[in-house]
Amino acid sequence: MNDSAPPATDLQVDFPFDYPAFVCADRRVGRLPAEALGTRVAVVGAGGSGLTAAYELMRAGCHPVLYEAESSADGPGGRRLGGRMDSRRLDEADSAVVELGCMRFPDSATLVRQYARTFGVRLVPFRDNYAAGCTPVTVLDVDGRQYPAQQITDLYALHDGFRAAHTRWQNALTRIGLFQLQRDVAARDLGAVRRRWCDLTARFEQWSFYRFLRDVEGAGLSHEQARLLGTAGVGPVAWDCFFDLSILEIWRMLLCTEGSTQLYVPQGISRLAEGFWAHRTTTAQGHSNSLEDLNHGTLRPAVRALDVAADAAGGVVAHSEDGRSERFAAAVFTPQLRLLETEVRLCSADGATPVLGPRMWRAVRRLHYFQSAKTALVTRRPFWAGTSLDGVTLTDRLPRACYTLDYGPAPGPGGRRAVLDLSFTWAQDAMKIAPFTVQERVALFVRDLAAIHPGAAPDLRAHAAADPAVTVSWEDRRNFQGLCRFSWPGDHPYQRDLFCHFMKDFTGTPAVPGEPPNALFLAGDDTSWSPGWLDHALASGLNAAWGVLRQLGARSEPGNPGPGDVWNDPRYVPITVP
Amino acid sequence: MNDSAPPATDLQVDFPFDYPAFVCADRRVGRLPAEALGTRVAVVGAGGSGLTAAYELMRAGCHPVLYEAESSADGPGGRRLGGRMDSRRLDEADSAVVELGCMRFPDSATLVRQYARTFGVRLVPFRDNYAAGCTPVTVLDVDGRQYPAQQITDLYALHDGFRAAHTRWQNALTRIGLFQLQRDVAARDLGAVRRRWCDLTARFEQWSFYRFLRDVEGAGLSHEQARLLGTAGVGPVAWDCFFDLSILEIWRMLLCTEGSTQLYVPQGISRLAEGFWAHRTTTAQGHSNSLEDLNHGTLRPAVRALDVAADAAGGVVAHSEDGRSERFAAAVFTPQLRLLETEVRLCSADGATPVLGPRMWRAVRRLHYFQSAKTALVTRRPFWAGTSLDGVTLTDRLPRACYTLDYGPAPGPGGRRAVLDLSFTWAQDAMKIAPFTVQERVALFVRDLAAIHPGAAPDLRAHAAADPAVTVSWEDRRNFQGLCRFSWPGDHPYQRDLFCHFMKDFTGTPAVPGEPPNALFLAGDDTSWSPGWLDHALASGLNAAWGVLRQLGARSEPGNPGPGDVWNDPRYVPITVP
Repeated sequence: MNDSAPPATDLQVDFPFDYPAFVCADRRVGRLPAEALGTRVAVVGAGGSGLTAAYELMRAGCHPVLYEAESSADGPGGRRLGGRMDSRRLDEADSAVVELGCMRFPDSATLVRQYARTFGVRLVPFRDNYAAGCTPVTVLDVDGRQYPAQQITDLYALHDGFRAAHTRWQNALTRIGLFQLQRDVAARDLGAVRRRWCDLTARFEQWSFYRFLRDVEGAGLSHEQARLLGTAGVGPVAWDCFFDLSILEIWRMLLCTEGSTQLYVPQGISRLAEGFWAHRTTTAQGHSNSLEDLNHGTLRPAVRALDVAADAAGGVVAHSEDGRSERFAAAVFTPQLRLLETEVRLCSADGATPVLGPRMWRAVRRLHYFQSAKTALVTRRPFWAGTSLDGVTLTDRLPRACYTLDYGPAPGPGGRRAVLDLSFTWAQDAMKIAPFTVQERVALFVRDLAAIHPGAAPDLRAHAAADPAVTVSWEDRRNFQGLCRFSWPGDHPYQRDLFCHFMKDFTGTPAVPGEPPNALFLAGDDTSWSPGWLDHALASGLNAAWGVLRQLGARSEPGNPGPGDVWNDPRYVPITVP
Repeated sequence: MNDSAPPATDLQVDFPFDYPAFVCADRRVGRLPAEALGTRVAVVGAGGSGLTAAYELMRAGCHPVLYEAESSADGPGGRRLGGRMDSRRLDEADSAVVELGCMRFPDSATLVRQYARTFGVRLVPFRDNYAAGCTPVTVLDVDGRQYPAQQITDLYALHDGFRAAHTRWQNALTRIGLFQLQRDVAARDLGAVRRRWCDLTARFEQWSFYRFLRDVEGAGLSHEQARLLGTAGVGPVAWDCFFDLSILEIWRMLLCTEGSTQLYVPQGISRLAEGFWAHRTTTAQGHSNSLEDLNHGTLRPAVRALDVAADAAGGVVAHSEDGRSERFAAAVFTPQLRLLETEVRLCSADGATPVLGPRMWRAVRRLHYFQSAKTALVTRRPFWAGTSLDGVTLTDRLPRACYTLDYGPAPGPGGRRAVLDLSFTWAQDAMKIAPFTVQERVALFVRDLAAIHPGAAPDLRAHAAADPAVTVSWEDRRNFQGLCRFSWPGDHPYQRDLFCHFMKDFTGTPAVPGEPPNALFLAGDDTSWSPGWLDHALASGLNAAWGVLRQLGARSEPGNPGPGDVWNDPRYVPITVP
C-alpha cells in the first residue's frame, strides 16, 4: 500500500516475542524435572490454542488430556477437532471445502506456517480483495454502481470520493508511524517498536476506528468519505460494521496483514488441526508419540465444571459431561471465555478462594464477541470464470463480501471443486440475515449478486437452484456465541489482564493483581492481543504451556527463553495504560 | 438528580413539535377535500406507529387498511396487535402480565398518556431503579459486593469510586447545559432549545457515550469510574453495554427521563394497542367508527411486496402473503426498516424509478439494531416481599437488571399476580444467554440472584422450580431482528434522512435530496430521533399521517399546523450536520 511497503509484522507489537523461534526444530517449551515427566494436564478445547498447548506439553514430557464440547460423527471419540478451524467437505468425491471459520491468514503468520510445514499441510495464496496478480478482479459495489479494481489504488481513477478517503487514511497511518512500526519489527528493533507502540497506545487507547477516521488528528474524513472507506474496506476485514472497535484493534490487524499475501489450505484448514492431533514427534522422554496416541484416539466430551485448588500444588479436577471426574496437576482452558459465565462452572476447591480474582472477572464479563455469518454455494465447476464475479465482490448490499474459490480437480467422479462464498458478514450485517434459513439466505444473496454481476446472473440463479449450500451464524453456536471477540475503546486494561493471566505470580508478584496462583491457565483467542487470527491463538497456547511447565518445576531450555522468561524485559512486558 | 431538577422534556429536542396538542380533543391531523374522503390507505404494521397513523387517518376521513406480520391465536384475523407492545398473560385467571417489549415509559410521554386517557387505559408508577418512594430498594451488585440504595445518590456514602464517577458525570451534564435544555423545553423557549441543541449536536455528534465518559472535555472519568457508572446505570437504560452509542442518543434518553416518574400499564401495554383498534371515534364524515369496524375485525397478513408508482398519484400496490394485491392511494410502512433488505420487496411500478433514493438506502442499510433479552418468572404471590430482592437489582453478573412487579389480586382462582423479571439485557449482555433455553436461562439467573440476595435464595429456588417462566430474545424474532435501533457516532445524517422522509417534496424541494415524491411513507421507531420509546414511535405515525393527508390534498385545520407545516420554521427544521 505504502510506497516503500514494509513486510507485515510477524511479531505482535504488544508482546513482540518470537514464538516460532521458541518452538522451531527440536526446541521445547521447557525442561521438566525427571519426576514431573508424564504429569497429566487437562486441556479444555481442541481448537488452535488447545492443540498447540497440548502438542507442546506433550513434546516437553507431559501427558495432556484433551476435552472438546463440539461433536462430529467422524471425529475422534465423536468430537470435532479444530474449534474455529472448521472445514466442511460435503462429499468424499469433492475437492471443494467450505471454511466456516478460519478461511485465510497472512504470510506474516509464521507460527501457523511453521506448524503447517511440520505437519505437511500445504498453503497457497488466497484470492483476497485487491490482491493484484492473484485475484482476477475485486468489484466494489456502492450506491448501486460497480467499480472494478485489481488493487485498491485502481479505484482512485474511478471514484474521486474514494481517492480522497483512501489517500487521507494512508497519510494518517504514515503520519502516526504505523508503517515505520512495521519496519522496526522487520528490523527486530524491539526498543523502537516498544517506544512507538507505547506512544500510540497512550494516545489512542480510547479512540474508536470511526473516531480516527473522522477526527482531524486522525484521517480527517467527511461522513461520506468514511462511509466509502468503510464499504471498500481497510485490510482484509475492517468494514464499517466495525466502526465501533478500538482503533488499536484495527491497527493490530493492519500491522499483520498490510503488505502480506493471504494464504489458505486447499485441503481445508481442519487439516492443520488433524496435524496437531496425529503428528508423531519425539517427546522429552525420547518416545515417539502423538496426541492421538496419548489420548487413545479419543477426545473427552465437554467439561462442565473445574474444581480449582487455592494453590497450584492442589491442581484441578475436571468434571466432564459423561460424569467422569479426574484430578490433573494443571488445566489449560481455551474456549471462548464467555462460557465461564454460563456453560462451565469454576468451583473453588476449598469453597473460599475464588478461582479468578475480581480483575479477571471484570475482563471476562466485558468481552465483546462479534456475530459472523457465511453462506456458500458448492458447485462442480467455477461457473463464474470470465465474469466480473470471478474474484471478490465488496458491496453495501446484503452480502457485503463475496469470494470465489477453485479447489482444483475433484478426487471422485461427479465431485465438486468450486466454492462461491455468497456472503461473509460480521456484526450488524450478520444480524440482518440471522433469522433466515439457508435457502432464504441464498435467495437474498443471489438477488443482490445478480444485480451487481448481470453477466453471471443466469448461471448464478441456475446453480443456486441446483447446487448445495452451506451456512453458519457463529453467534448461534452454543460453544462459541460469536466468531471472535474484538476490543472496544478502553478495553486495553481487560486485554492486558487476559493476556497476563498465564504469568500467575512467577515473577514474585501476581502479573494480574489479586489473582490467586492456582493451576488454571486461561488461553485461546480471547487472551491474545489481536483476536480472530489463528497465529495469535496458537501463540496463546504456547503461553499457557510455558506457564504449566513452569508451575510443574520446569526451567527453560538453555538459550531458549520462553514468553515468561522475558517478562521483566521492558521491551516485552505488556503496557499498562492509566 | 440536579438540585433544581427541571421536568423531563415532553418535546423531542431534535424536532420540538407538540404532537399531543396537535391531536388533542377534536383536532384532526388534516382536513381532506370532500372527494378524498374514504380514500383507502395501506398501513403496514399494527404496532404503535402504524396504529397511530391508522387511527388518525381514520379520524381525518381516510379508510386505513392494516397489515400485520405477527400472528396470534386470539388476535384479530389471527394476527397480533401491538408490535413491540407485547404483553403476555399466561392464564385468564392471572392479573400478572409479562411485558416482552415496551415495559415502562416516562411521564414526559404525553402523547402516550393522552391516548391512554382517551382509551381508558390506566397508568401507574413503575418500580424503576433508584425510584425513591416507589421502589423499596435498588441493589447495586458490583465486584461481588452489594450496595442498597433508595436513590442513586445514596450510593455516594457506600462507594467512594461511585461518588466520584457520578458527581463528575452530573457536573459534565450541567456544564454542557443539558439541564438548562430541559428547562428551556419546559418554558417552551424553542429558540433557546434550538441554539443549545445545535451547539451540542455540532460539537458532540461524533462522540460515543464512552468517549464522553472518559474525555476531559466530557466527564473525565477513569477506566474504573466509567466501569462503575456503566454498571450502576445512567437513567433507566444506559449501561456499559451501550458504551458504543452516540452520546446524543444517551442525552435524548436522559432528556425525556431525568426527573420523570416511569409508568406502566397494570392491564398490560397491549391494552393501549387494543384501544387504538377498538375505540370508536367520530370521523371527518361524522360517523362513529373504529379501526376494528373499518377493517371488518381483521388484520391482513404480512405484506411481501409494495409496487410503488414513480409519482404520488400512482399510489402503491400492496401484495400480502395470502396472495392478495390491492392498490392504495398511499402506504405507510412502519416495521423495523431492516426488513426492506430482506422480508419486504420494494418494487418500482415503472421498473425504472427507484422507490427509495440512494440516501434513504444508505440510511436503511446502516441502521444499528440491538439485541435484547428478558426472562421472567410468573408467580402466585410476590414472595420476595421484605427481602433485598423486593425492588430492582443491577449487577455486573449475567442478569444485569432484575425487576419485581405485583399486579394485585388475580381475577380468577389460583391466578398469578406477581412477575419477577429475572433478567433484562441488551447487546453483548443479551448475546451471552442467546443460545440457551428458558429453563437454562432461569437456572443461570437464579444462581446469580441467589448469590446477591441470600435472604431470598430459598424461595427463589423453590419458585424457579415450580412456577412458569417466559423468555424472549428480540433478535431472534423474524419480524423484528432486535428490540430497537440506536445510533452510533456519526449516524446523525442517516437519522435526519429517516426522520425527514415523510416530508417528501411538500416544501417544493425534496426534504431528502434525491428522494422520489411517491406515495410510500416510512414511519415507526426507526424514523424517530430517539428509538425505543413508545411516545416517539407514536409521533412518527403522526408524521406519516400528516404526509399522507397532504398528498391526498388535505390542508391543516385552522389553528392546528402539523409537523410539516412548521418545517420552514428554523426552530423546528431538523439540523443538518456537515
